[in-house]
Amino acid sequence: MSVSLRKARTIIRKTLEKGREMEFKPLSVVVLDAGGHVIAFEREDGAAPGRFGIAQGKAYGSVMLGMAGTAQMQRAETQAYFMASVNGVYGGQVVPVPGGVLLRDRKGAVIGAVGVTGDTSDNDALAAMAGIEAAGLIGEI
Amino acid sequence: MSVSLRKARTIIRKTLEKGREMEFKPLSVVVLDAGGHVIAFEREDGAAPGRFGIAQGKAYGSVMLGMAGTAQMQRAETQAYFMASVNGVYGGQVVPVPGGVLLRDRKGAVIGAVGVTGDTSDNDALAAMAGIEAAGLIGEI
Amino acid sequence: MSVSLRKARTIIRKTLEKGREMEFKPLSVVVLDAGGHVIAFEREDGAAPGRFGIAQGKAYGSVMLGMAGTAQMQRAETQAYFMASVNGVYGGQVVPVPGGVLLRDRKGAVIGAVGVTGDTSDNDALAAMAGIEAAGLIGEI
Amino acid sequence: MSVSLRKARTIIRKTLEKGREMEFKPLSVVVLDAGGHVIAFEREDGAAPGRFGIAQGKAYGSVMLGMAGTAQMQRAETQAYFMASVNGVYGGQVVPVPGGVLLRDRKGAVIGAVGVTGDTSDNDALAAMAGIEAAGLIGEI
Repeated sequence: MSVSLRKARTIIRKTLEKGREMEFKPLSVVVLDAGGHVIAFEREDGAAPGRFGIAQGKAYGSVMLGMAGTAQMQRAETQAYFMASVNGVYGGQVVPVPGGVLLRDRKGAVIGAVGVTGDTSDNDALAAMAGIEAAGLIGEI
Repeated sequence: MSVSLRKARTIIRKTLEKGREMEFKPLSVVVLDAGGHVIAFEREDGAAPGRFGIAQGKAYGSVMLGMAGTAQMQRAETQAYFMASVNGVYGGQVVPVPGGVLLRDRKGAVIGAVGVTGDTSDNDALAAMAGIEAAGLIGEI
Repeated sequence: MSVSLRKARTIIRKTLEKGREMEFKPLSVVVLDAGGHVIAFEREDGAAPGRFGIAQGKAYGSVMLGMAGTAQMQRAETQAYFMASVNGVYGGQVVPVPGGVLLRDRKGAVIGAVGVTGDTSDNDALAAMAGIEAAGLIGEI
Repeated sequence: MSVSLRKARTIIRKTLEKGREMEFKPLSVVVLDAGGHVIAFEREDGAAPGRFGIAQGKAYGSVMLGMAGTAQMQRAETQAYFMASVNGVYGGQVVPVPGGVLLRDRKGAVIGAVGVTGDTSDNDALAAMAGIEAAGLIGEI
């Protein structure tokens, strides 16, 4: 099972809707496939220009390591040099905080990841989960 | 005047519609702002995984140089080392072929760029222009 | 459909067997998944130390562009600056010559790629095809 | 004495067998030569796509510094900036944790390294040692 563009659009729209409903700051949302490659991205008006890279970094590390943002943050807090070296391996593209959410299929296989940035990391993850659930997929924050 | 997310979505949807109408291969479309930063991106099902980078490279070079894909290609063909050095300056992110389209406002100022990839470079540019016109903006291929 | 480690091993062994049967120079063979990530690699005794990067580059460009080595070479020969810029986008990891072979499923979708290096590019591709056929998969050189 | 492809295969197979016997998560195993160059690699089905880079980073730092993963980790914990600067020197390819295992000959000379990733760092190292011993070589974790 792979994430279609149609599913990716639903995730993004519903994540942004959740953000507005909760009165979060303007959000940026990326959806990556199982290989860490971009399927779709949107940055809300008013968000800072560099948000693509942050959203992508949250999702990319999740896919490449098979480890969502929360677990990455715990590893970074207990063993900072490990996550720093992981970032070297992956070309500096890993942002190890919540808002990087793994997408899993019914059997538990990773089929992609969502990256959200703009508000607090926990709020970013909360909005992502709303989008993922609206698309009928399983998220792991 | 800046390109809103709403406008960027219209450009992408209408570019993809044009591609399907013309029976082009699956397309990928990015819209960048006046600073060369990603506003929105979509990759159609069936497109190769690495298409974000190519779309982004077509649009990024257009914004950063203020020169659309056709003009960049002419420069690359007459003075290859110049475009190679430009690529060094911009971190290897410039893809100097048609499909990189400048977005201009009514006064002629650059307000962003669109990058399309998937079919031939000329067809990519043709689809981009359909999207840009549907959004009521002025494109320069 | 994805390429299992078992299939990847078969591809590699049969590619190397073909090379020895044809008295090619020592070969190196990589198998990548649909996202361009390494599943398995082997370098025969006597091959030069840097062969991993060449094999990986042949296969990586194939997956990322959805274009096998022969088509990449034709593009590089007619429009050298385009393939040079593609290499910038993909971090210098693209080696656009035969020996990069796409793996397709029965419906034509790309499920990975094989990269072979060590002898002439055409012989590399020939050996790869022997391995791919032995594994019951469809290759595109 | 150098590590032959035959030996490298034995190391990888026996490391993976040990991992399954111990019910570890899916492992990825690389074997490098005395110059830090890849001889062979395998990633088990179910492992995250980015595991090649982590396995390679564990083994590469071991060879380049002549210091196995455990010693690298101790250095990183007492002098983080040193391992960070080492990573600058080696292009960000060093992952200084257990699972990077030096291969030595009978006289103590370094003849290569093994990198294992997928479970805890200590379990990765344990599996690597099983593979190295099965190949009749001497490992240093």
